[in-house]
Amino acid sequence: MKATRTLRTRILLIAALLAAAAHTAGVSAADSPSPWRPLDPNNTLYMELTGGRVIIELAPQFAPNHVENIKALVRAKYFDQQRINRVQDNFVTQWGDPNFAGPIGDAKPKLPGEFTRSAVGLPFTPLPDPDVYAPQTGFVEGFPAARDSATGEAWAVHCYGMVGVGRGNESDSGSGAELYAVIGHAPRHLDRNITLVGRVVQGMDLLASLPRGKGSMGFYENPSQHTVIKTMRVAADVPEAERTPLEAMRTDSPEFAKNIEARRNRRDEWYKVPAGKIEVCNVPLPVRRVRAN
Amino acid sequence: MKATRTLRTRILLIAALLAAAAHTAGVSAADSPSPWRPLDPNNTLYMELTGGRVIIELAPQFAPNHVENIKALVRAKYFDQQRINRVQDNFVTQWGDPNFAGPIGDAKPKLPGEFTRSAVGLPFTPLPDPDVYAPQTGFVEGFPAARDSATGEAWAVHCYGMVGVGRGNESDSGSGAELYAVIGHAPRHLDRNITLVGRVVQGMDLLASLPRGKGSMGFYENPSQHTVIKTMRVAADVPEAERTPLEAMRTDSPEFAKNIEARRNRRDEWYKVPAGKIEVCNVPLPVRRVRAN
Repeated sequence: MKATRTLRTRILLIAALLAAAAHTAGVSAADSPSPWRPLDPNNTLYMELTGGRVIIELAPQFAPNHVENIKALVRAKYFDQQRINRVQDNFVTQWGDPNFAGPIGDAKPKLPGEFTRSAVGLPFTPLPDPDVYAPQTGFVEGFPAARDSATGEAWAVHCYGMVGVGRGNESDSGSGAELYAVIGHAPRHLDRNITLVGRVVQGMDLLASLPRGKGSMGFYENPSQHTVIKTMRVAADVPEAERTPLEAMRTDSPEFAKNIEARRNRRDEWYKVPAGKIEVCNVPLPVRRVRAN
Repeated sequence: MKATRTLRTRILLIAALLAAAAHTAGVSAADSPSPWRPLDPNNTLYMELTGGRVIIELAPQFAPNHVENIKALVRAKYFDQQRINRVQDNFVTQWGDPNFAGPIGDAKPKLPGEFTRSAVGLPFTPLPDPDVYAPQTGFVEGFPAARDSATGEAWAVHCYGMVGVGRGNESDSGSGAELYAVIGHAPRHLDRNITLVGRVVQGMDLLASLPRGKGSMGFYENPSQHTVIKTMRVAADVPEAERTPLEAMRTDSPEFAKNIEARRNRRDEWYKVPAGKIEVCNVPLPVRRVRAN
């Protein structure tokens, strides 16, 4: 009767449609490839908190050097027992050492920024709608992205759940030793100014529901308020039985395009005025858990 | 050295500039009106949680009937001991009875939706930049808003912190007995589909940091997980000594326009590529606490 009921019905309907689509793909696998892809364990991070596992899919397409450096930091156990030391409402949750001077293991203390890259050779699925911040937005292998035909550049964009690399004033002052995840409205003004390295695909609720820091910029005033990171591991280094088997919907699949269209123009009874458009950060990027083999 | 330090410097600089602007306004009050306005206690709600006070500025410009109904519910003590029963990550925190059948006191059990209104007579400060969802966006007396010259309509928009009225499938099925606040990326597809009644001006951190509900759509599975609303009151009904003296920056002031421009084109050392544009939900709406008289 209330929004609650109706929205539930709507979501169940969407879930049913998705399941039907997946089923169809399954039974006719020879004809149409599955719209789902397993996450690559070599580019997946597990951050273990007391509340549970946060899973980050890395984006080497956009930041190959930072992704390599972060994996080196992870493998050197740099992040184990590091803290979440900043939670600024409607902005970011941040962890790691802001004063990291490294090197540790094979990880470098700083790297040139990977703020944009060449759009050449990048599989880009454009959205049909315009954007406030970029000439064109869309998706690249699961990540929200933008590109500019005038400059030939492409870049990942700061949607909810995207993970980036803290840096100082110099473009080359970041390393990946301090990371943040977006927990509020997309701070798109950060696009092309800072290196994005991935996206949280599970556990955003754990990062977004932390108490906000009361200090300047959301830093906690007291280290006792920090959330301890138990461990951070590359999924490939975790025994297979302990991995979380996730699949992400291919953003270049017909099923994803159907999802977008269903969101641009909601057709259920609840909606009175379909938006007719969608903004890149309002497009859901479906992830599902599958049974381990 | 790291982003943290630099960002802190930047924020302090902005604060200093704001303070200077406010000071200037103060010393030459006869020449330039203050960019700050006190909140109207008749259109301000205090929702008391164990964690502190959440303050909502109501928007009778956009939803006069719902605002009246909500104040009637508040004055009938309907919300006292109600629960926050839904927290859906990257969407909404919601409270009140989804099955409210009223009436209670002077409050009606349902009202025609106030999804849009006539743009005529509404003081609208437009943003210079385009928008994905609306022909034009801007601000109306402190609220993010949109308008369409083709239809002559205006409406409040779903930015972070906006408060709306849950409803069922029928446009007239909401009453204000079930309210939500946006806690994630602006769900702009809800615009013109549901009644917005105000904005959280203090305490968003309390609503956004609650544990997410594990049930469908973020409803808590167990009532023991609910957050109890101790009381909800109209500020005018609260003894003056117990009120929180807040002022909001006037969104039609030159100072606010300066703030917007400073955000569209960041000029500090940290930014390498100024966005050159801004989206309505990325514009900060400054609120400050003043000493009580």
